[in-house]
Amino acid sequence: MQAFSDGLRTAGKTIAFVPTMGFLHEGHLSLMRLGRQKADALVVSIFVNPTQFGPGEDFASYPRNLERDLALIATVGADAVFTPEAAQVYPNGFETCVSLEHLPHHLCGLSRPVHFRGVATVVTKLFHLVKPHLAVFGEKDWQQLQVIRRLVRDLNMDITIVGGPIVREPDGLAMSSRNSYLNADQRPAALSLYRSLIRAVQMVGSGQTRAADIVAAATALIGAHEVNRIDYIAVCDPQTLEPMEEITAPALMALAVKVGATRLIDNIMLEPAAP
Amino acid sequence: MQAFSDGLRTAGKTIAFVPTMGFLHEGHLSLMRLGRQKADALVVSIFVNPTQFGPGEDFASYPRNLERDLALIATVGADAVFTPEAAQVYPNGFETCVSLEHLPHHLCGLSRPVHFRGVATVVTKLFHLVKPHLAVFGEKDWQQLQVIRRLVRDLNMDITIVGGPIVREPDGLAMSSRNSYLNADQRPAALSLYRSLIRAVQMVGSGQTRAADIVAAATALIGAHEVNRIDYIAVCDPQTLEPMEEITAPALMALAVKVGATRLIDNIMLEPAAP
Repeated sequence: MQAFSDGLRTAGKTIAFVPTMGFLHEGHLSLMRLGRQKADALVVSIFVNPTQFGPGEDFASYPRNLERDLALIATVGADAVFTPEAAQVYPNGFETCVSLEHLPHHLCGLSRPVHFRGVATVVTKLFHLVKPHLAVFGEKDWQQLQVIRRLVRDLNMDITIVGGPIVREPDGLAMSSRNSYLNADQRPAALSLYRSLIRAVQMVGSGQTRAADIVAAATALIGAHEVNRIDYIAVCDPQTLEPMEEITAPALMALAVKVGATRLIDNIMLEPAAP
Repeated sequence: MQAFSDGLRTAGKTIAFVPTMGFLHEGHLSLMRLGRQKADALVVSIFVNPTQFGPGEDFASYPRNLERDLALIATVGADAVFTPEAAQVYPNGFETCVSLEHLPHHLCGLSRPVHFRGVATVVTKLFHLVKPHLAVFGEKDWQQLQVIRRLVRDLNMDITIVGGPIVREPDGLAMSSRNSYLNADQRPAALSLYRSLIRAVQMVGSGQTRAADIVAAATALIGAHEVNRIDYIAVCDPQTLEPMEEITAPALMALAVKVGATRLIDNIMLEPAAP
């Protein structure tokens, strides 16, 4: 992989990188198209990273379909697809990790304590292997995007991080590989995540600024579906992820909900109405 | 710094990097000469990294003399000397660290619990800033060298790590910026570190293989000087730093001793006699 990227760099080409865990959907493809637009060459990786899954999470059952993924990537056209094996990525004796002190102690990090250390470490490794000029991450995993931005800045990596907007199904459900876990009955419950975000945008648009009210409305809407178990619903500073009580500046509304056994996340930006 | 290195790389030049904390001596210069030999260009950094000093250690008093350092570097000839400020290296909001799980729990890491996390983090940053093809570290800081080798391998950095042999004063004292702390009375006590290593080499050469005996002899020799306080004297596997009881394969003998207020380290390889 490094030799391939060295070749591109020596030829004066810029490299865009889209790291994924595979089981690709239109959200991933949109990130690849963004990468293609912004650089001469595109590298996509597919690696279901074991270290970002906690005990009891869905590492073993995470959906995989390499053949289908490669066919989908071919519709965008990548210069390389990097698919390392876990034993290559974490050989015997591996003992190094990259971790952040503050950003992981919010939102998803609270219920997934090892997750962002796993993400930060594997992304650092993939950056060293792929040597990109820029890397594209989806805004659905907003906290992950902030962790990566911070890590790149803190470790002085010479890589531009680009966020790609959330891509949704026609009904509004944010695209996710984990949507494949949902059965037909759970779909309306899953859709309540997006509906609660839209409701929040409307509330803020009509002048409501108290985060507690907005969270309460979302809690009612999502909680109306018996199958849902709310992990968190938060209104926070989009960069630091610190909670916001009054929406007097653009705020991120983010949530995580277990729909049956399937943990889904979504988020949206809340812009306060002009005074 | 990155733009400078990009320029060298685009021109097809290889870059050797010698990171230092300044107050240079012949040991550092030997690493620079090694770097010069092995690459087209040489970059030297001088940065007294606050995060690798623990509370109560000598960060504030660590000797500094930039003018003299630059004159010494000029005798070797570097293509760039990189001297960042702490506020640039660790700006407000900095929160990322690189740490290892096993190697730091040996030797110096036991009495300096934050040291190697500080080293691993700053070296990762410096590597991203300087973008070297190879980097040279002194074997006096043997544990540091192993930490860096491990970190580079674990994080897939495309950088060759080169170790440079210990350079000693005519009397055998390993060169160190901290030797400047020693007064004339402490010099014989400081010299007992090297004398105990030489004694160990002789013992192993004459067929003794029990690490405990070798450590006991060194303890007696160093302990004979009242001003010395032994931190550790260890015989261990040179790569993993795990203790060795029988010297049946090449072993590292490493020690740290406080001579008055000055903490000194030294080490030597013990090669078992041919059977």
